[in-house]
Amino acid sequence: VKNLRDGTITSPRGFLAGAAAAGIKTKGGPDLGILYSEKPCVAAGRFTKNRIKAAPVQWCQDRVSSGKAQAVIINAGCANACTGEQGLKDAKAMAQAAAKKLGISVNSVLVASTGVIGKKLPVDRIASGVKKIKLSANGGHELARAIMTTDTHPKEIAVACEEYGFTVAGIAKGAGMIHPDMATMLSFLTTDARIDARLLDRLLGEAVGASLNMITVDGDTSTNDTVLILANGAGGVVKAGTKAADAFAKALFKVCTYLARSIAADGEGATRLIEVTVDGAKSLADARMAARTIVGSPLVKSAVHGRDPNWGRIIAALGRSGAEFNPKKVDLYLDKIQLMSAGEPVLFDKKTASAAMGKDEVKVRVALNGGKHSATAWGCDLSAEYVAINSEYTT
Amino acid sequence: VKNLRDGTITSPRGFLAGAAAAGIKTKGGPDLGILYSEKPCVAAGRFTKNRIKAAPVQWCQDRVSSGKAQAVIINAGCANACTGEQGLKDAKAMAQAAAKKLGISVNSVLVASTGVIGKKLPVDRIASGVKKIKLSANGGHELARAIMTTDTHPKEIAVACEEYGFTVAGIAKGAGMIHPDMATMLSFLTTDARIDARLLDRLLGEAVGASLNMITVDGDTSTNDTVLILANGAGGVVKAGTKAADAFAKALFKVCTYLARSIAADGEGATRLIEVTVDGAKSLADARMAARTIVGSPLVKSAVHGRDPNWGRIIAALGRSGAEFNPKKVDLYLDKIQLMSAGEPVLFDKKTASAAMGKDEVKVRVALNGGKHSATAWGCDLSAEYVAINSEYTT
Repeated sequence: VKNLRDGTITSPRGFLAGAAAAGIKTKGGPDLGILYSEKPCVAAGRFTKNRIKAAPVQWCQDRVSSGKAQAVIINAGCANACTGEQGLKDAKAMAQAAAKKLGISVNSVLVASTGVIGKKLPVDRIASGVKKIKLSANGGHELARAIMTTDTHPKEIAVACEEYGFTVAGIAKGAGMIHPDMATMLSFLTTDARIDARLLDRLLGEAVGASLNMITVDGDTSTNDTVLILANGAGGVVKAGTKAADAFAKALFKVCTYLARSIAADGEGATRLIEVTVDGAKSLADARMAARTIVGSPLVKSAVHGRDPNWGRIIAALGRSGAEFNPKKVDLYLDKIQLMSAGEPVLFDKKTASAAMGKDEVKVRVALNGGKHSATAWGCDLSAEYVAINSEYTT
Repeated sequence: VKNLRDGTITSPRGFLAGAAAAGIKTKGGPDLGILYSEKPCVAAGRFTKNRIKAAPVQWCQDRVSSGKAQAVIINAGCANACTGEQGLKDAKAMAQAAAKKLGISVNSVLVASTGVIGKKLPVDRIASGVKKIKLSANGGHELARAIMTTDTHPKEIAVACEEYGFTVAGIAKGAGMIHPDMATMLSFLTTDARIDARLLDRLLGEAVGASLNMITVDGDTSTNDTVLILANGAGGVVKAGTKAADAFAKALFKVCTYLARSIAADGEGATRLIEVTVDGAKSLADARMAARTIVGSPLVKSAVHGRDPNWGRIIAALGRSGAEFNPKKVDLYLDKIQLMSAGEPVLFDKKTASAAMGKDEVKVRVALNGGKHSATAWGCDLSAEYVAINSEYTT
């Protein structure tokens, strides 16, 4: 599988997209978009495990269970969460507006929203906005922009597998309230692979577990976390147990990991990406728990921000993660620099360590030396800008 | 039970304390102190559940299990955590220095440290510092100052129960790496009550569970969390199942709650205290989990900082807390203002709500209406100052 230059969610055959400024965001700009497949698709999704689920999440869960869909309508500026019965009606109205425009059944339209919680969806503006949207085969870029909130740039990617004749692509939005639990706040994937719903669902779950579910910006799991994949079958056949399925899994993982890393690196107020790998764990769950706890620690995040090799915070976060390990076996590395060996501090050059913490990608590796499992998690540094962004969001 | 004016840890009969500047903190100032009881004491403690435990925590755990102690030596500026075998030797050397000065057995001396993780304890400076300490019956204030790191003021309190003839007092330090799991980073309690070790241990556990374990500053559980109580028996008798025991439990809870609230309000960079009460929960564990998750949410903390009544973040944090509840039954209040009723938004005046978020104590109440259990948790707002403090700590 290889990256497509300028790839986006409409790179796989048969997908169109477009966006418009519907006046949902108070600041203006594109805030409404549609993703549409010319053919009906096999679909799979993963949604927030937050007990409070936004109306569009509830709408999608009901639809995706059928394994079929043909379009997704997405808005930024209003999350349509904690909006009660009216919220569910509004999510349906939003689907209906798209269904009417596209001439398809309302049940083929998935819905996603992001923005302020507790505000009612402006359905009239959405209905007018839908009319303004022009769909095109290159419209993925527009759509990726329209779903942004505090993101500083769109996140999009497409990878092609020539051998088995398919492309997998995706877009995502992140920035804040990012601690995905089963999915991340708005990630959309497309593929032209011909794949059945069951296999698609399994492979999506595997890819998301090791990518989008391994990032954190602020530890706050959103009410709207949604990842959706539509497969329209316009390309090569992918069957369970074949090499094509392996290639597809690899492509999907590549797309999901790219989006996950992009979301982490573009976290609210972030100036750099932090990548934490934990290996030698007794179980995959332990490795994942440890990696994500370390990368999410406000003290580790602040230390990275200040290029301060205060590695004790990494070890303290590891210790509280809940992962099982023997403290006397732990090795710790920052980039190539060893900071701890078998649980004891190692003398290191502070200037070199500080420089490693100033890189665009700060890499931490913790070797637990107690098993065979490993996991990588991604996050970002904590800056004063994060506080500024989140002190003045709704007002 | 009533508060004693100017009360501190030496307010109960028979306790002495003192502190000195030993040169452990790079910035200078008092950083070493001793708490001493003229009589041998019954002792109990609670320590961090972090898998990485600092050397002084290991020392204390071994000693406290005997239920006896007579002194505590405490330093700031170096946590003596992640220091391996040498760290354990150094903790013992610190206890020995105090034992020698006081003329008691080394096994009667408890040890606590706070500061940078991974740095070796400067035992020579501690030995010299110990000689400089002058113990006095009013030395609790000095001791409370000496254990501060990024705290802006000492935390101390004493409450007296005239009816049963005892006083309970305590000091604490907090500020950063505060998400106590079984205890908080350095809290010391004294009482002159005549109480057995078993009852003391049980009542300490109950008090800590509802107070010090219900605060969070940054979600990072420290490697050094320690709460110790010494009871020297110089005052009234407290036996299990008596009214005196009820009064003692009440006094202990009052002291612990005061210290817990003080730590939360003085969290690194904090400008105000946030108090979250969750009631109507199915279990105490659910109520506690929900309250502490909400008060620890970076998005909630940032919103409070900016006086932004973005209540959706409170509900999102509740949803991810793991607590069981029915989203359609949730009521939400900010101070006296209702924001949500039976899961639906309520219209409220934004200015009044914003003003409520600007108070020194911001009070949130979540009624789950699904059971009889309630819990209160305390935290603080998140400011740019938190990032500044933690970006430049070791360097």
